[in-house]
Amino acid sequence: MTGIAACQLRLAVGQVDVNRARARDAIERAASGGAELIVLPELTPSGYAFHDDAEARALAETPDGPTAREWQDLSRRLGVVIIGGFCERGPGDTLFNSAVIFENGQLRATYRKAHLWDEETQIFTPGDQPPPVVDTSVGRVGTMICYDLEFPEWTRLAALAGADVLAAPTNWPLAARPDGERPMEVVRVQAAASVNRMFIVAADRCGEERSVAWVGGSVIVDPDGFPLAGPVAAADERNLHADIDLSQARDKKISKHNDVLADRRLDLYDTASINTSSHSDDARCSMLLG
Amino acid sequence: MTGIAACQLRLAVGQVDVNRARARDAIERAASGGAELIVLPELTPSGYAFHDDAEARALAETPDGPTAREWQDLSRRLGVVIIGGFCERGPGDTLFNSAVIFENGQLRATYRKAHLWDEETQIFTPGDQPPPVVDTSVGRVGTMICYDLEFPEWTRLAALAGADVLAAPTNWPLAARPDGERPMEVVRVQAAASVNRMFIVAADRCGEERSVAWVGGSVIVDPDGFPLAGPVAAADERNLHADIDLSQARDKKISKHNDVLADRRLDLYDTASINTSSHSDDARCSMLLG
Repeated sequence: MTGIAACQLRLAVGQVDVNRARARDAIERAASGGAELIVLPELTPSGYAFHDDAEARALAETPDGPTAREWQDLSRRLGVVIIGGFCERGPGDTLFNSAVIFENGQLRATYRKAHLWDEETQIFTPGDQPPPVVDTSVGRVGTMICYDLEFPEWTRLAALAGADVLAAPTNWPLAARPDGERPMEVVRVQAAASVNRMFIVAADRCGEERSVAWVGGSVIVDPDGFPLAGPVAAADERNLHADIDLSQARDKKISKHNDVLADRRLDLYDTASINTSSHSDDARCSMLLG
Repeated sequence: MTGIAACQLRLAVGQVDVNRARARDAIERAASGGAELIVLPELTPSGYAFHDDAEARALAETPDGPTAREWQDLSRRLGVVIIGGFCERGPGDTLFNSAVIFENGQLRATYRKAHLWDEETQIFTPGDQPPPVVDTSVGRVGTMICYDLEFPEWTRLAALAGADVLAAPTNWPLAARPDGERPMEVVRVQAAASVNRMFIVAADRCGEERSVAWVGGSVIVDPDGFPLAGPVAAADERNLHADIDLSQARDKKISKHNDVLADRRLDLYDTASINTSSHSDDARCSMLLG
């Protein structure tokens, strides 16, 4: 069994030292509670609701900056895998909404959010690489960020790349929902876990920031799609913990004759390219053939 | 506003006359309650839990057989759109798990289930066409059947083809779930509705048949993913009804800068073919180039 934690944090835009300390405390508590894989929210050190591009730029760091170095040190000292989101200063003038995976003092992957939410489109450059999946001491760990989760194509890619667990830093803005209903962000995570038979851990923000309120919907979901811990759906800081058998995610069979990945009808999904891009593959080949 | 109904029926394998009468009664009740679009379960006239191929074959009908003719007549007489599932006798020795869309006495589409569940693989030929979307008097209506819904690629195709509402005949076998949790079949429908911003109507079986129990999870879900009627999650027959504004499904925007279909990163999903087939497109083109 592997101990998994999602750290739901209350953060404030621009208060980097405070945010970093909150993350550190949560990581240490999670590790002392037995967690070997620890997930933090999106844009943890910087906060989220930037006034503008300039403010985001002033708060940006590189994947070897002070926040990353702290997570690197913590991952070595505590012997854990840490996944967290941060505002990345990239080449030239670029900013990315990124996540890093640290294992035992090593930077295993940096991922740049590919599907940007609302005002993020005015600040960040979208990533152009698929979600990374890293073979770690605790299992195969994939990552993506928040709105990325709303694209079943993207969660499918992580599953196809072999993710046992998808670790997702999120900052889910709170929207109205009918009484008694779960946040739709959580429902989509449940569905993505079940159709791919992988674990998903979402670590969300809580509280408010410059009139943006957060769902506080952190959750750990099993390959059947049911929550093992959470969803919190509340405004308080909380470490969720679950002990999971990651190997469950390697069995994609759901009946004597069914397998969630093998049952895909790739021959028919090609219709997608016909419907959605200007050329089918064959047309593209013909073009290359001249 | 358009009146939509899902007819959750108790059916019995082999009792075609009884099953057909139950469907007829439910259609008439739904129409008299104001429904203009009426959805029936999968394999309505035949029942589901066939002993073998021979039993299914004996219960199979063509899309101009007696059940289809009755639904055709009812759609004309009541002025409604009817979507229902039946066991289709196809060319040669083939059997299909099919659905028909009838509008005002016209057969608008026949769809053959493309993703077959468990023992169905031993009886039916899988369909080889994408889910149809038909422009009807009440809006653009797509259809697919039961396990098809578990493939986000497939529900996406219906949305891309312009479905305002996806009408899904289902026979969801009952599986254990944690106390207080919704059936995962319903959760997946909610997620599919929300990531595509379309209505989904699932008409399920209820009761038991040859030791197979059904979820009885009929539900009508809005483009936010929240239920408008149901989920029933019970063993009793029930007509669900909702009055919906189908045009809501034509607005795919979810923030100032976001649109659930336009935000797809088609350039990056191409990675799917690299990951999932033996050759990348470029490699395939190279092969064609020789």
